[in-house]
Amino acid sequence: MKHVISADQFNKDDILEILNLAKKMDEILASKKVCKIAEGKILATFFYEPSTRTRLSFETAMQRLGGSVISTSNVNFSSVKKGETIEDSAKVLSGYADVIALRSPEIGYAARAAKVSAVPILNGGDGAGEHPTQSFLDLYTISKYFDLEKPLTVSMVGELICGRTVHSLSKMLRNFPNVKINFVAPEEIQIPAKYFHEGDKKFYELTDEILETSDVIYDTRIQKERIAPEVYEKHKNAFHFDVAKVSKMKPNAMLMHPLPRVTEISPEVDDLPQARYFEQARNGVPTRMALIAYVLGLEV
Amino acid sequence: MKHVISADQFNKDDILEILNLAKKMDEILASKKVCKIAEGKILATFFYEPSTRTRLSFETAMQRLGGSVISTSNVNFSSVKKGETIEDSAKVLSGYADVIALRSPEIGYAARAAKVSAVPILNGGDGAGEHPTQSFLDLYTISKYFDLEKPLTVSMVGELICGRTVHSLSKMLRNFPNVKINFVAPEEIQIPAKYFHEGDKKFYELTDEILETSDVIYDTRIQKERIAPEVYEKHKNAFHFDVAKVSKMKPNAMLMHPLPRVTEISPEVDDLPQARYFEQARNGVPTRMALIAYVLGLEV
Amino acid sequence: MKHVISADQFNKDDILEILNLAKKMDEILASKKVCKIAEGKILATFFYEPSTRTRLSFETAMQRLGGSVISTSNVNFSSVKKGETIEDSAKVLSGYADVIALRSPEIGYAARAAKVSAVPILNGGDGAGEHPTQSFLDLYTISKYFDLEKPLTVSMVGELICGRTVHSLSKMLRNFPNVKINFVAPEEIQIPAKYFHEGDKKFYELTDEILETSDVIYDTRIQKERIAPEVYEKHKNAFHFDVAKVSKMKPNAMLMHPLPRVTEISPEVDDLPQARYFEQARNGVPTRMALIAYVLGLEV
Repeated sequence: MKHVISADQFNKDDILEILNLAKKMDEILASKKVCKIAEGKILATFFYEPSTRTRLSFETAMQRLGGSVISTSNVNFSSVKKGETIEDSAKVLSGYADVIALRSPEIGYAARAAKVSAVPILNGGDGAGEHPTQSFLDLYTISKYFDLEKPLTVSMVGELICGRTVHSLSKMLRNFPNVKINFVAPEEIQIPAKYFHEGDKKFYELTDEILETSDVIYDTRIQKERIAPEVYEKHKNAFHFDVAKVSKMKPNAMLMHPLPRVTEISPEVDDLPQARYFEQARNGVPTRMALIAYVLGLEV
Repeated sequence: MKHVISADQFNKDDILEILNLAKKMDEILASKKVCKIAEGKILATFFYEPSTRTRLSFETAMQRLGGSVISTSNVNFSSVKKGETIEDSAKVLSGYADVIALRSPEIGYAARAAKVSAVPILNGGDGAGEHPTQSFLDLYTISKYFDLEKPLTVSMVGELICGRTVHSLSKMLRNFPNVKINFVAPEEIQIPAKYFHEGDKKFYELTDEILETSDVIYDTRIQKERIAPEVYEKHKNAFHFDVAKVSKMKPNAMLMHPLPRVTEISPEVDDLPQARYFEQARNGVPTRMALIAYVLGLEV
Repeated sequence: MKHVISADQFNKDDILEILNLAKKMDEILASKKVCKIAEGKILATFFYEPSTRTRLSFETAMQRLGGSVISTSNVNFSSVKKGETIEDSAKVLSGYADVIALRSPEIGYAARAAKVSAVPILNGGDGAGEHPTQSFLDLYTISKYFDLEKPLTVSMVGELICGRTVHSLSKMLRNFPNVKINFVAPEEIQIPAKYFHEGDKKFYELTDEILETSDVIYDTRIQKERIAPEVYEKHKNAFHFDVAKVSKMKPNAMLMHPLPRVTEISPEVDDLPQARYFEQARNGVPTRMALIAYVLGLEV
């Protein structure tokens, strides 16, 4: 049985297979035809923490495949409150559904669920741990515009110390040796050593050089609560993307963001050709369709 | 692209087209046949405030059409809590769903969403603003028993100062010049000047004359919190509908209420022929089916 | 019109009919074929209290039948908060859905809803009252391994004073005179007199005799808040099921639990052949499919 728990479990061939499947799913979506690939199958979304975006895109994906959904968006109100373990929840849910998408506040819950579940588990984010389905949609977004096998410069900007999206994405990009990674963040929230590889570069300011030479800039929110107030005040403008800065990017470069954004990108940037973050969000649908099909072994 | 944001956007022809569509939807419902008009389409319900009635009737409508639903009933727990704007939420959701029903606590959110959304927006109530899909179901309920083109007396009773349902309904009724409107409420919560037109009448008591001459009485809840306690105490009984009062209405007249009611109508009234408020609630389904079909341009 | 409100409404023939229907549903599930028995039908789940397990298994059941679902998992946030009665909620919901599954915090809500609803009501638990659909899944689980018409010893263990699952189950078992019931609990939380029948036995300790002679042990959570702390401390270990104790059970005996469990059964017990509680949970699906088909009169 296949699960999607961590970026670590996928090699280059797996990744390319899934990206290719996502492309096929995009063609199905574009055709506007009714798809019944997953007819009669049920996805359970089981979210300890609310997350509109991730939950709804999983549920959209399953329904676009012709399947149906049972949904829990705030588990803390229910059986878990009574003290149920993630193992018990997973065993019960796997008696109902054919596949489970799980979001949890703590690292390791998805792996623990996968150990006992009778059906595939899709990790929809486990605390400060991993968020592999987000990484697949990020990779898929990049792959629509760039060949991952050819030289490519990806700069990750903002909150790098705790951000599970950049951690998972950087791990996946290691499968593509021509991709160069820059980590751009104030020192206090720079990338942890274990994610920093030989050949990577660290920057502490968002310089013109980064703007001008990156093919992909992956921006994330600087979370106020994880950084000293004076550090936040010092950097918040330096790391703010406005039209002037984004216009310095190459015309075919892309600015990504996992959303929701708060103040880190001006709304005016949305109209620039480099702004790809809403398209990126939308890519959650074909990518999660692909991942559901992948773990369920559906014929596409 | 069509949206349903405000009562202002519909002229008489639009209204009649939608009421006619609702009638066809009622026939589909009555036939008990499986309908696939919206097969493969997804409705997103995105409710900042919980509203069982409105949300469930939208979701019922979409499923009766053969489509499916992604649902968020309490947005405050999720991305919005992190500071996402309605514009960003609408852009993201419109990458998932084919049509979005939105309920928000503040005026103008639906219009702001419509400006940026890639798919139609249905305003499911925006604070003290508008609630046009409610007005359509109200109008549809009236139109099942009365010809809107002929002389008709509609009395709106109760909370008129802030009630978005009566505001939207009164606007729509302006398209039918033979409809006479009475506004019946204590002075403190009477209809705002901008909704009061030449030919309308104001009353400050629920008199026998109103009961005996109205074809339609549209009652709403007097919300304690919007009125001084002594005014509430003075009027609460005067505006209470019991069997004695409702029996004074014409036999074919109708008593409507947007529900939920609390104390303003006695449960015993439910059995009288004039009581139409549960039928009115049920009409939310064919009406919202019609509105979904209208904005999506579905073949009926 | 049929409702499922109380264990009292079912005689032996009804019960056997429903268990037989559940067996057919299990065959449909095992066949992995797409089922359309309830296509076009809508189940409303209306839960005042959150209950992941019960709600999701109802929703799974309806979708496995090919129907669809409208869902409210925390009614307190919505119209009920505005003061709506259960009668009004039921009248409105029955204008939307074809069948309603209701969970309420207070005894009698399901019966009140059934009195006014235009569609069947399934009682998904009403406070300390009844939980008949749970009893059917419990009975179905027992009936898969034992003939209810032949001699059988069922021991109910733990919280017996307020536990609606044991109350409803004991009532249903009265239809099968060869079933002997033991009630095993500290005196403070023993079975109320009205559920204790001639021929039943009471025990105040979980003895080897009970372990060795029972065909079915139905364990429930001892709820700390319903018992004096010193009583809880005294009994919590005595009523704890570990591998040593469960191994004393007959090889073909079964240990059941309505879940969620907290500390009353060690996770290591899960691997023993007597452990049937996850299978029991899974049986919620075919049983609730059967009950939906039963009240809707669906052809199976």
